[in-house]
Amino acid sequence: MKVARFSHGESISFGIVDEEEHELVVLKGDPMYAGYDPTGERVPLGEAKLLAPVIPRSKIIAVGRNYRAHAEELGNEVPDEPMLFFKPNTSVIGPGDAIVLPTQSEHVDFEGELAVVIGRVARNVPEADALGVVFGYTAANDVSARDLQRRDGQWARAKGFDTFCPLGPVIETEFDPAASRIEAGVNGETRQSAPFTDLVHSIPAIIAFASAAFTLLPGDVILTGTPAGVAQLHDGDTVEVTIAGLGTLSNPVRAAR
Amino acid sequence: MKVARFSHGESISFGIVDEEEHELVVLKGDPMYAGYDPTGERVPLGEAKLLAPVIPRSKIIAVGRNYRAHAEELGNEVPDEPMLFFKPNTSVIGPGDAIVLPTQSEHVDFEGELAVVIGRVARNVPEADALGVVFGYTAANDVSARDLQRRDGQWARAKGFDTFCPLGPVIETEFDPAASRIEAGVNGETRQSAPFTDLVHSIPAIIAFASAAFTLLPGDVILTGTPAGVAQLHDGDTVEVTIAGLGTLSNPVRAAR
Repeated sequence: MKVARFSHGESISFGIVDEEEHELVVLKGDPMYAGYDPTGERVPLGEAKLLAPVIPRSKIIAVGRNYRAHAEELGNEVPDEPMLFFKPNTSVIGPGDAIVLPTQSEHVDFEGELAVVIGRVARNVPEADALGVVFGYTAANDVSARDLQRRDGQWARAKGFDTFCPLGPVIETEFDPAASRIEAGVNGETRQSAPFTDLVHSIPAIIAFASAAFTLLPGDVILTGTPAGVAQLHDGDTVEVTIAGLGTLSNPVRAAR
Repeated sequence: MKVARFSHGESISFGIVDEEEHELVVLKGDPMYAGYDPTGERVPLGEAKLLAPVIPRSKIIAVGRNYRAHAEELGNEVPDEPMLFFKPNTSVIGPGDAIVLPTQSEHVDFEGELAVVIGRVARNVPEADALGVVFGYTAANDVSARDLQRRDGQWARAKGFDTFCPLGPVIETEFDPAASRIEAGVNGETRQSAPFTDLVHSIPAIIAFASAAFTLLPGDVILTGTPAGVAQLHDGDTVEVTIAGLGTLSNPVRAAR
């Protein structure tokens, strides 16, 4: 089932995507908290503006160097344990929203990623139970100011600028990463292409490791790392992250005014 | 004015501390959003349990190496720009709550700090206007698993464990850091002692720098760095952070069960 958050006219709602009818089945509340309770209204997909399908109230946890070939392209080793960092919820934008290149950086890269959306309070979850706390999956772009990432040492600023975490287009609640793959690129040219079987640390392993440090809350998002092929973004570009079974997250890029 | 968040019986409320009467003037809502609107009720301070005075909905931003002598004690240089990292809101605890030493670490340090509580939406705030977005100040403890901080490289996990961000006891809305100082220590022995005039990057400079990257939201908290004298915590310790004019933030320490 594909869950969308969208605006239509003046209101913001959650809905289920009816792919046959190209419509959104409008829900009374956020299904993560309120279940699937339809209002009876339906909105044509073409009339809705899709928004980021989740706004984390607590954490966006991201994993660095989780594909061997990407770690190598930046001259890094693959770490023995998941390498975690945070992005702030103020960096989240939705499908179609502009990624703004900050004046502080000369080199902003895109990084296409699979994002896991947590649906339950979770603390010290064993790997074997980890998928039970997942609400669903969406696509993400871990936009990164590569020069500031190197200069600052800590990645909070370089990966935390406003607009640096596009999420969407929808959350798929029934999704098997092992049967899917990611493709990402700029202006129609594919730069990243990898199956999720290439993840160094698996999704259950990441959830177990992270939840042994931080209580995970519903709405927390985990970005699972980016494959090789990251590339620089420029004013006027369009960057797309496509995940088989989830759809395409597309964002224009513009320089800060 | 000192703003407290507290539990009394079954309810959680905000209140203003009446220091003469040792009472809390109960407010109808969170004064950061709802203003100072008393219910008419008063609660004796001795009957209330003070809670963390703010739960950030977006960001806890912390500044590394912001006192020269502390940077030197860990063998680091003072950075030219504020060195920012994030702590998750799941790490926040209140006065009197236990700091839990995780099994993953052999060496957890306390770090007493002055915390700035943001009261307004702020983006690209000039240094000259920065204090205008401050709601108030409180004491904080940037608890840090020093071994994991070194091993992980990124500090998200080492500084982000549950219970690793004690805040309190109250938010002082009228506070002049230049006229105050911090003392912190363990089991009654003072280990840290410094005036806030020792901050390498001033509070307005930090707010300007951070808000040039991230939109600051009401309830965001900025930890301004720790002076020299950090020391290890052990099961059974009590750690105290005292800021002149704000009060003392005291927390017991226990090993994870």
